[in-house]
Amino acid sequence: MSASDAVLAIDIGGTKLAAGLVDPSGAIVRSARRPTPAGEDERIWSAVGELIDEVVADVDPVGIGVGCGGPLRLDLGEVSPLNIPSWRGFPVVARLAHRFPDLPVRLHNDAAAMAVGEHWLGAGRAASSLLGVVVSTGVGAGLVVDGRTVNGPTGNAAHLGHVVVDPHGPACECGGRGCLEAVARGPAVVAAALAGGWRPASDVIDGRALVRDAEAGDPAAVGALHRAGEALGVALASASHLLELDRAVIGGGLAVGAGELLLGATRVAYARHACLDFAAGCEIVPAQLGSDAGLIGAAALVIEPRYLARAGGHS
Amino acid sequence: MSASDAVLAIDIGGTKLAAGLVDPSGAIVRSARRPTPAGEDERIWSAVGELIDEVVADVDPVGIGVGCGGPLRLDLGEVSPLNIPSWRGFPVVARLAHRFPDLPVRLHNDAAAMAVGEHWLGAGRAASSLLGVVVSTGVGAGLVVDGRTVNGPTGNAAHLGHVVVDPHGPACECGGRGCLEAVARGPAVVAAALAGGWRPASDVIDGRALVRDAEAGDPAAVGALHRAGEALGVALASASHLLELDRAVIGGGLAVGAGELLLGATRVAYARHACLDFAAGCEIVPAQLGSDAGLIGAAALVIEPRYLARAGGHS
Repeated sequence: MSASDAVLAIDIGGTKLAAGLVDPSGAIVRSARRPTPAGEDERIWSAVGELIDEVVADVDPVGIGVGCGGPLRLDLGEVSPLNIPSWRGFPVVARLAHRFPDLPVRLHNDAAAMAVGEHWLGAGRAASSLLGVVVSTGVGAGLVVDGRTVNGPTGNAAHLGHVVVDPHGPACECGGRGCLEAVARGPAVVAAALAGGWRPASDVIDGRALVRDAEAGDPAAVGALHRAGEALGVALASASHLLELDRAVIGGGLAVGAGELLLGATRVAYARHACLDFAAGCEIVPAQLGSDAGLIGAAALVIEPRYLARAGGHS
Repeated sequence: MSASDAVLAIDIGGTKLAAGLVDPSGAIVRSARRPTPAGEDERIWSAVGELIDEVVADVDPVGIGVGCGGPLRLDLGEVSPLNIPSWRGFPVVARLAHRFPDLPVRLHNDAAAMAVGEHWLGAGRAASSLLGVVVSTGVGAGLVVDGRTVNGPTGNAAHLGHVVVDPHGPACECGGRGCLEAVARGPAVVAAALAGGWRPASDVIDGRALVRDAEAGDPAAVGALHRAGEALGVALASASHLLELDRAVIGGGLAVGAGELLLGATRVAYARHACLDFAAGCEIVPAQLGSDAGLIGAAALVIEPRYLARAGGHS
């Protein structure tokens, strides 16, 4: 890598923060990550800053790409991640521009970055109407149509996590009810499994343990992943009828870990609810870039600027 | 009207067929309508042809705009309306081009035409991300973003009628389950009212009678319209999270007839499920162009070609 080619990529989520240097081919040359600290806004920003120091070191990046949990205001460069309660209207673009005054800063939500990464170098290549979905602490998504992100007026289109999968379902962090995220986010799936009689084989009770026990045959663990997968299939059917998707790429820690235990149920539910020709043909496939998709996609916003042709614009 | 300025507009639905001559200002100069006949494909096409004869008479139109029930293939000029079972892949554009060999023919689904009409001259003016919804024999929708229809690869984006509002809900004509259309289409609402104890005051049992009896206080009639309205609100919440809508214009015979009996419940359900700032702000308003919206919008596809800049394209 020539130091002058590297892009600084930043991935900000409710569970973890990551930063990396990405070369023009999309290879991550150096990266670092850490859990997202709890607490007030500047504490989280300090943690991001330390990660940046760690990966930038003596390199001068040519630009900065940021993926951050939504909602956000692309037009203002501000973020209000549901899973980072102390960041409300946090001016992440201005902060980065202040620190790197001469560099372009490109922002999108973390799931849009994942979708761009998978479209550029992963399981979304050549799709004409691609939804990239992240099933993790939250459930997010990004839409790439004809090789460009679809943003909506303020950058919040493609919020698949708040598609209603059951109008009488559980309350959601957003204030709504029965959202996909309320059913299929990792903590909700873990809670549903416990309520259904899951007996964790280890002391650690998290999504990873749930998947491990489901693979070992625990019926409540299997059932909880199955119901999360079904909910994802229902939401994808709704999305496909609205967006005429040809491919959905599913990533994020919980979905990648669970694999077919979740995705199998997603495909069955999708087929039950998406019967019209134009919807039925959508392929549902696992992500290929794993936990790197967010960094690669954030970098792609700089390296392949066509993906985000009009920040804040509709398309 | 100068005869040389008129556009021939055609509106093809499962319940009625309409044709009209529309002048460049959007005024309908002459129109005719009739019920959609049952039966084989050519019989329906003959009925369309007779309507065309009736309105065209001695005028030479400058172009033809067609709205037709979906699904369709904009890229092929073919239609397969769910509510016209004998039309499957019917080549409506080629038929019209054959009859009017020198005229441009612009096709979209009937609800997209309604959305375009309302955006041009009705309740959707100046909206930047508008969903126009038709609640009638079926439930359709069209999306106008930044002044252009959003089509999807084959022209089938914005199929709000098949957004899932209840995964365990009634079977839908499309083969799916719990679609908005299965719950809120006129015949389904009438059936639900009867099942709930509606006692029709007249011998005619249809949407109009239902609305009349609901206005007179029949609780089962009120309840059925209320539940249809709620389902619409749930579907709009899902759509708004995916599309970042700023306005939804609701038309179609049942919705226009029922007015606030339906739309009031829609707004309450929408507010319950669309809480994030970017979604909560969407206005839900009644259509202004009434049953003319389809013809006016079909004509607008010719008069204001910017609305359909790339037939078959994504946007």
